[in-house]
Amino acid sequence: MNKTITILLLCLLFTSESFSQKVNTEDSITLRNIFDMALLNGKSYDWLDHLSNKIGGRLSGTLSAQDAVDYTKEELDKLGLDKVWLQPVMVPKWTRGLPEYAYVETGPGITSMANICALGGSVATRDGGLKAGVIEVQGIEDLARYGEEQIKGKIVFYNRPMKADLIHTFQAYGGCVDQRYAGAMEAAKYGAVGVVVRSMNLRLDDYPHTGSMSYGDTPVAQRIPACAISTKGADYLSGILKLLPTLKFYFKQNCKTYPDVQSYNVIGEITGSVYPNRFMIVGGHLDSWDLGDGSHDDGAGCVQSMEVLRLFKKINYKPKHSIRVVLFMNEENGLRGGRKYAEEAKLKNENHVFALESDSGGFTPRGFSFDIDDANFTQVEGWESLFKPYLIHYFEKGGSGADIGPLKHDGMVLAGLRPDSQRYFDYHHAANDTFEAVNKRELELGGAAMASLVYLFDKYGTKTESKSIKN
Amino acid sequence: MNKTITILLLCLLFTSESFSQKVNTEDSITLRNIFDMALLNGKSYDWLDHLSNKIGGRLSGTLSAQDAVDYTKEELDKLGLDKVWLQPVMVPKWTRGLPEYAYVETGPGITSMANICALGGSVATRDGGLKAGVIEVQGIEDLARYGEEQIKGKIVFYNRPMKADLIHTFQAYGGCVDQRYAGAMEAAKYGAVGVVVRSMNLRLDDYPHTGSMSYGDTPVAQRIPACAISTKGADYLSGILKLLPTLKFYFKQNCKTYPDVQSYNVIGEITGSVYPNRFMIVGGHLDSWDLGDGSHDDGAGCVQSMEVLRLFKKINYKPKHSIRVVLFMNEENGLRGGRKYAEEAKLKNENHVFALESDSGGFTPRGFSFDIDDANFTQVEGWESLFKPYLIHYFEKGGSGADIGPLKHDGMVLAGLRPDSQRYFDYHHAANDTFEAVNKRELELGGAAMASLVYLFDKYGTKTESKSIKN
Repeated sequence: MNKTITILLLCLLFTSESFSQKVNTEDSITLRNIFDMALLNGKSYDWLDHLSNKIGGRLSGTLSAQDAVDYTKEELDKLGLDKVWLQPVMVPKWTRGLPEYAYVETGPGITSMANICALGGSVATRDGGLKAGVIEVQGIEDLARYGEEQIKGKIVFYNRPMKADLIHTFQAYGGCVDQRYAGAMEAAKYGAVGVVVRSMNLRLDDYPHTGSMSYGDTPVAQRIPACAISTKGADYLSGILKLLPTLKFYFKQNCKTYPDVQSYNVIGEITGSVYPNRFMIVGGHLDSWDLGDGSHDDGAGCVQSMEVLRLFKKINYKPKHSIRVVLFMNEENGLRGGRKYAEEAKLKNENHVFALESDSGGFTPRGFSFDIDDANFTQVEGWESLFKPYLIHYFEKGGSGADIGPLKHDGMVLAGLRPDSQRYFDYHHAANDTFEAVNKRELELGGAAMASLVYLFDKYGTKTESKSIKN
Repeated sequence: MNKTITILLLCLLFTSESFSQKVNTEDSITLRNIFDMALLNGKSYDWLDHLSNKIGGRLSGTLSAQDAVDYTKEELDKLGLDKVWLQPVMVPKWTRGLPEYAYVETGPGITSMANICALGGSVATRDGGLKAGVIEVQGIEDLARYGEEQIKGKIVFYNRPMKADLIHTFQAYGGCVDQRYAGAMEAAKYGAVGVVVRSMNLRLDDYPHTGSMSYGDTPVAQRIPACAISTKGADYLSGILKLLPTLKFYFKQNCKTYPDVQSYNVIGEITGSVYPNRFMIVGGHLDSWDLGDGSHDDGAGCVQSMEVLRLFKKINYKPKHSIRVVLFMNEENGLRGGRKYAEEAKLKNENHVFALESDSGGFTPRGFSFDIDDANFTQVEGWESLFKPYLIHYFEKGGSGADIGPLKHDGMVLAGLRPDSQRYFDYHHAANDTFEAVNKRELELGGAAMASLVYLFDKYGTKTESKSIKN
């Protein structure tokens, strides 16, 4: 072989070598240990059982949210971490009050029930409830088309469904959720008296799905009540409206917002052996909506995150960086916990180099999405083959998690666990988000996948952490 | 650049080109059409609703198995296929009889109930039931260790659990199922009077899981009754045995085998436009066990296979090869349908070039396994990027499906749909394998994935079909 070709071949070999980082046998063994420990002696499912079945729904500001703070701190205390503490944070307190009630009236005294729930943050209806004509729209952008003349005095019924042909169900959610979040404030501008929103659910069933909404800077006197209707209810309402456009919709809800109350983020730490002042965090949010027990959203993410630190202790892995589990309070209706954690990190000049959130349900893990630069992403791609034996194939750039978003700074790596998303919106923010809907193995595989990713980032570092101004 | 290097680089380019077949835009569009049609206007879920909720469990030889034959033929008739027909096949008829009954007796009159079910093919106990001491073993290989002296006159309790640390749950099943299939015939050789087998279930619950067993050539008089016990029951029995090795186990079952009866495979065909005498088949098995309604095993595979042909008609794809859907009868306790189909194909000299089976549940599709040679596998690898938008990543050599196995000949491509397997054994062969356990989107994605693979094999052909002696 002539010399030029030899050099060329060596160059090619070198490129392929550096492009796809060689799988290290030690790493393979560590991942196997992590998965074995999670599947054979996992703790996440028991923790979730307690959070879901003993404590239940954990809406910010409730006694059960406080119970969840106390319980998870106690459980972290048992793990032999280096530090466990509560980080105070003031959170909003909104309560649903008595069960909501609604019906469709097609003639005097001729009514049929509708399954609704107040949206989180909504005002109540007047004491006697609200009854008005209905105008159906396919989204906020339709309001201008109908104008004040057709909307004034009516209940606006937002009925744009989630798109079933999108494979990533979170994309379908993203395409509808503005109706829920901003539907009331936008409809009020046209003189609407109330808002009914089709539940963000791909399935046809009888569960209304709640979720946060905002009035923006709408003056208090002009805020109109907003509720979600089940998908079956929405189809019924839409169908009957075509036959009888003059029908009336009645709903009654007596939800209320109180002054902020004290709550906490729950934090545990294994202090790093080499870089104690570089922090890698893994977390989920401890609060949930009140209709179910918040098993998928986000009890699962909390117990998986706790499991990451427990697994490290169990397999006797001593991380180089300080690894923290953070159970954030108030993701659902305020994000106060995530903001508070980021503020304090900034105040204390703590150098956060990596954060991973699990807040997409406790289903079979498919991979991770990364909010990351190219150098760091190339490193991640080099690890893909390590995850393949665990059927974890999805490594893409994209979002991470709401709670860790406020931490973001240049050179930091943010990531989100991406479980299978097909069933998530069957349960999301609804009364059927309960423990029975979580499969033990699927939950455990997610925790193990997270521990594996944290292990690799801890061992190899992020590609940008040493360049950070704060060390 | 010198000439040698140029040639070398061209060679490299060419290799990479042929290695990873260029994704064709037309193929991308066709796959998108297939998935859109399946997710927006799918029919598989409605079919499964009927099979599960109107017809129910479809054990070979029962009236409901015949109902399933009639129903699926009628539905195929509606699709405008070129041919639909029934292929007669004689099947075994085994009936469970009255509900089974079992208890653990720890003292005179001191008993606790156990949840059992007869294994498919088992003989009954005597009229009064069977009561005997118990010897627990961890598998067939333990029998020789205990020997006739410790086993004779006892009930052998096979209690080797599925290994939770295996990611592929079918591997864990494979590691235990010999206890169920051959446990009775092996224990009888040592004088055992009955067999109780731990259910093949990774979860701890109260459902006993049935499944086929065989007496091999054990003379009729020496056949001993065999049942499955729920995983919770097995743990209880094992625990109490340690405290009281002299306890007695009682069980009563009056299952019975009758002479073979007439049944059918259900077959539909779109005749090929270019190669009408080359056959590609897609199928599942129409029979199920009797405890649940067989929604995952294998109602899902049947309706997904029917959906493949329906999708082709709906997107107006005219296949080059003859594409058949085959709903096989009697996979569970005889495989008569699969054998019959292969026999007739051979008799008629039909050239089968590709077969795909779905018999692993209606969960989110992860990919396919292939019983295939290297040339064909390389072609499949070239299609991987087409499936990536649908989060289908798993393409591995391995098994295909029981029903299509008998068709196998050199140069034929066999494949099996591989859905997420984490929950499969929660339901497999148990009373909770019901329609509610199937998610509509997950089922539909599986059917679309299958249609996509059949489309690609039809369009590009297998790498070996033209070399086949039969054309």
